[in-house]
Amino acid sequence: MKISPSFIELETGNGIALHDLMPGIREAVAKSGITNGFVTVTSQHTTTAIAINEFEERLLEDVKTFLTRLIPPGDRYLHNDIDMRDCPEDEPENAHSHLAAMLLGSSEVIGLSAGELVLGQYQSVMLYELDGPRQRKVNVQVVGE
Amino acid sequence: MKISPSFIELETGNGIALHDLMPGIREAVAKSGITNGFVTVTSQHTTTAIAINEFEERLLEDVKTFLTRLIPPGDRYLHNDIDMRDCPEDEPENAHSHLAAMLLGSSEVIGLSAGELVLGQYQSVMLYELDGPRQRKVNVQVVGE
Amino acid sequence: MKISPSFIELETGNGIALHDLMPGIREAVAKSGITNGFVTVTSQHTTTAIAINEFEERLLEDVKTFLTRLIPPGDRYLHNDIDMRDCPEDEPENAHSHLAAMLLGSSEVIGLSAGELVLGQYQSVMLYELDGPRQRKVNVQVVGE
Repeated sequence: MKISPSFIELETGNGIALHDLMPGIREAVAKSGITNGFVTVTSQHTTTAIAINEFEERLLEDVKTFLTRLIPPGDRYLHNDIDMRDCPEDEPENAHSHLAAMLLGSSEVIGLSAGELVLGQYQSVMLYELDGPRQRKVNVQVVGE
Repeated sequence: MKISPSFIELETGNGIALHDLMPGIREAVAKSGITNGFVTVTSQHTTTAIAINEFEERLLEDVKTFLTRLIPPGDRYLHNDIDMRDCPEDEPENAHSHLAAMLLGSSEVIGLSAGELVLGQYQSVMLYELDGPRQRKVNVQVVGE
Repeated sequence: MKISPSFIELETGNGIALHDLMPGIREAVAKSGITNGFVTVTSQHTTTAIAINEFEERLLEDVKTFLTRLIPPGDRYLHNDIDMRDCPEDEPENAHSHLAAMLLGSSEVIGLSAGELVLGQYQSVMLYELDGPRQRKVNVQVVGE
């Protein structure tokens, strides 16, 4: 049994955006030579998240609408008082993005069988950008034989 | 070290319903012969989720009430305009179920020690059905020695 | 490849509180002798959660405010009718804590490379106490070579 580490790097969309990680994960699996086991996918940022769901254009718009209503960017957040914190002056006011990231979660684990991710017909592993656009990294570990 | 893959198949309840996966996971662990390591549990659908919490009848009702209030099925969602999408005409109008699945998450990982899942007294691994009833599958990977 | 199990034990703060697990996880990694692979972190309680985000004092206050507004402790929950349940009379009325735990999730998995967790600059693995103060346990499995 072995472990093969990889990174997916991507330039993300504006504000809240969803990105399909399946091509990058499939590449990591192919590179690893591992065909049976599992894959871990972990976000490397505090204002992104990982989820598994349907990568469908209109649903992605619903996600943006829902998150913006649930955690309004314009609400009062203590984290947004940049001058009260020990951090660079040009830090973004993005407390709402952190809160969304916490709710959505930073990692998922997916089975691997005969070289294919064990996922249902409509499932894609996705990166949620919650404060874009930015340059982002996702860690993928392929584990097995 | 080895990996033993399994599936739990179940017929779920109506609308939002929670199902205890512990019997199926214990069966997968027993079948694997693995006693120390960990177990990954991953949903195979975009309108289900995996969580670890207390499998208690009245709490399950609270979950239904809470999710229905948080993400009302009757709200306007673009994903529910079935005729605007490239999909079968009889697709269900279930954007709210997708959003709940994203929030709750699709996988969990649990330690395994001396043949038992490393969980607290009140913890059960559960499948959340968010758009039932349906025939569902959950992937379980038992990993270790 | 091997697996090294550990527990982090801690006394948590009042009500909703966040605790940095990084020192305990680093100790588990050092003890394991494993330098490349991954780490799984799983909460052992139904009113705690695990997340990866920025451990920043003012953001932690925002988390408390947000969760209290999203899932008000004073709302009506069936799980809080202690006398209707088959449980000790002194059970706490904490349905809101269970609901928050389900949303936030009970486990995360993080890569391990050259003895260091593969995390971004601002990321910390944290325990969310949602019904403190209590004595709590977190299971950490270090996996790899």
